[in-house]
Amino acid sequence: MYLPSHFEETRIDVLHELIRAQPLGLLITLSANGLQANPFPFLIDAGPTPLGTLRGHLARANPLWHEARADVDALVVFQGPQAYISPSLYPSKAATGKVVPTWNYVTVQARGKLRAVDDPAWVRGIVERLTQTHEAPRAVPWAVSDAPTDYVNSMLRAIVGIEIELSALQGKWKVSQNRSAADRQGVAHGLAQQAQASANSQTAAMARLVAGGSTA
Amino acid sequence: MYLPSHFEETRIDVLHELIRAQPLGLLITLSANGLQANPFPFLIDAGPTPLGTLRGHLARANPLWHEARADVDALVVFQGPQAYISPSLYPSKAATGKVVPTWNYVTVQARGKLRAVDDPAWVRGIVERLTQTHEAPRAVPWAVSDAPTDYVNSMLRAIVGIEIELSALQGKWKVSQNRSAADRQGVAHGLAQQAQASANSQTAAMARLVAGGSTA
Repeated sequence: MYLPSHFEETRIDVLHELIRAQPLGLLITLSANGLQANPFPFLIDAGPTPLGTLRGHLARANPLWHEARADVDALVVFQGPQAYISPSLYPSKAATGKVVPTWNYVTVQARGKLRAVDDPAWVRGIVERLTQTHEAPRAVPWAVSDAPTDYVNSMLRAIVGIEIELSALQGKWKVSQNRSAADRQGVAHGLAQQAQASANSQTAAMARLVAGGSTA
Repeated sequence: MYLPSHFEETRIDVLHELIRAQPLGLLITLSANGLQANPFPFLIDAGPTPLGTLRGHLARANPLWHEARADVDALVVFQGPQAYISPSLYPSKAATGKVVPTWNYVTVQARGKLRAVDDPAWVRGIVERLTQTHEAPRAVPWAVSDAPTDYVNSMLRAIVGIEIELSALQGKWKVSQNRSAADRQGVAHGLAQQAQASANSQTAAMARLVAGGSTA
């Protein structure tokens, strides 16, 4: 990824936080049929330090887990907030006219060797953790143990675990850091107004980022 | 991409519509340094039929346009609405308990040979069209001609055009089509409630999709 230093986010805890907030990662691999991209919800674990490990699962019927070429590292891309930035949001437009449009976005890219884990106990553990994570906000969280044992076992046989111990982890926070403080304020204010008008939460999140608020 | 037939969207106009609604595509290429993924806003043109052409531009300083391997087709991934689906949203949970969580999402994947276009007039045309497209919702749309000519020319020299005539175009609408009508209603209702609680427009969009509403 092209990553000018003023857009780079290097704090590992911030990158892990984005992955937890936007856990649907795009797993990119190379196979004999070319580039492959499949979305999966991932868990990020902090160890081994410093970069951590991504874990998840996929349908056994998805050929990815046995077709991905082992000599090319897998890449997993997580996408945070994004928004078109009109030059009209910059106060400097009125002063000099020297402004052009751009697109703001937040993305985290993780890289490492993809390992398939065809082990029912391991896969059950990941399914239980993913479930606990995503059921946590619910008033009455569903648990894997709520379903009949035979049914759960048959569903678990239909999936395979995946694990990527990270060898690289990059964050790009393209959120107007290359503009003056006044222009950043103009963007944050303009996006907040657009978000209110459109109920667009991605835009609202980008507004908070540009204002220097929460990381994602 | 793993694409069971019940999740496949084959209508080209629907796929182009998703690209226009979510134009920030992830351009994936292979270079000598491995897999590369860079987000750019794209324009989709309907011709040549049937699949059309993606066009955009990137920073000249981004090595992608001269480092991407020509023998591996580029892949561009567009992401629509997505949401975690709790088994608690299915009425069938109460009846049989035979339910597990999943993740719904909409994605379009476009493939073809990447061509760099280092031609100032071509690049200016793309910048003007992108600007017109994304400024259209604004009360007073900004236009490239609003900026000083020398400034615009210097900015245009800093970018390079890209064009991908599509050789493949796939759509995956994973929006609960494999569930009963009652379960789909339960998901649509549950997501709509969550969206109201969280002001999460992605969730609201997925609720509309599951209910059989607009395509993205």
